[in-house]
Amino acid sequence: MATQISLEPIGFVHSHVKITPKPEYDWSDAVSEIELAQAWQAGLDGLEQYSHVIVLYWAHKATDKAKMALRVHYRGEVTLPKVGLFASRSPYRPNPLCMKVVRLLSVKGNILHVQNLDALDGTPVVDIKPFIPTNDVPTDVRVPDWNQFRSETP
Amino acid sequence: MATQISLEPIGFVHSHVKITPKPEYDWSDAVSEIELAQAWQAGLDGLEQYSHVIVLYWAHKATDKAKMALRVHYRGEVTLPKVGLFASRSPYRPNPLCMKVVRLLSVKGNILHVQNLDALDGTPVVDIKPFIPTNDVPTDVRVPDWNQFRSETP
Repeated sequence: MATQISLEPIGFVHSHVKITPKPEYDWSDAVSEIELAQAWQAGLDGLEQYSHVIVLYWAHKATDKAKMALRVHYRGEVTLPKVGLFASRSPYRPNPLCMKVVRLLSVKGNILHVQNLDALDGTPVVDIKPFIPTNDVPTDVRVPDWNQFRSETP
Repeated sequence: MATQISLEPIGFVHSHVKITPKPEYDWSDAVSEIELAQAWQAGLDGLEQYSHVIVLYWAHKATDKAKMALRVHYRGEVTLPKVGLFASRSPYRPNPLCMKVVRLLSVKGNILHVQNLDALDGTPVVDIKPFIPTNDVPTDVRVPDWNQFRSETP
């Protein structure tokens, strides 16, 4: 399709995770830093009053289109049936944009400290939004059986 | 910053909402269609087993950088204090990407019917992901007082 969209990173992730870990890697306690370009610092005013923020980032290590498949094993687990890529959260997507809700630990100047961000060191961040349950959490949510997989593994 | 990122729409929104409505417009009952490029149709397999999906879209009517301010009135409400743009959900952002959790009503071929998508007719869609509460809904969420505004108005 003809529409072309250009994004500019607003900042970058600093993390001790430098290379892609295994799918079962647990990011929940990982603390990372997001360093925003100084031009955007005033745009953070008031964000510290939220406990959680939505981070949109560019999965810069998942841009090889040769590795993208239309149908994938959910979470890379070969015992599960293949599903369409849009029914997965694989970073190998037509546009490798990832969305992660993270705990906001602090905002100091142009630096955010966050917990649970599943992004590698050097990842370009393209947006940060406040997480607002009345807006972002619907009721009556249903997920398929094969998605329950996550909670069955430690 | 030097990194440049290009996105390609995977599809477009069809909606009866053709022009930007007032901020108080209630989208919750709005039903829209997302028409994916046919090349991506197989990528939808299994998505219909989820009740809700995350839609990432390009706010193509909010790309005028002259209208973007670093500090904005929350929800355009002048009685509320100004906050940084990243503490708001205004579409006027360095990268006007919007994220909306919508109810998935049906998937037929390359067409999704969704409810509660706050996007104008013709909006480019750049990603669709399954909404997974164990992944996307944290506990102990706190929002600032001025965010309660929404629930105080009908």
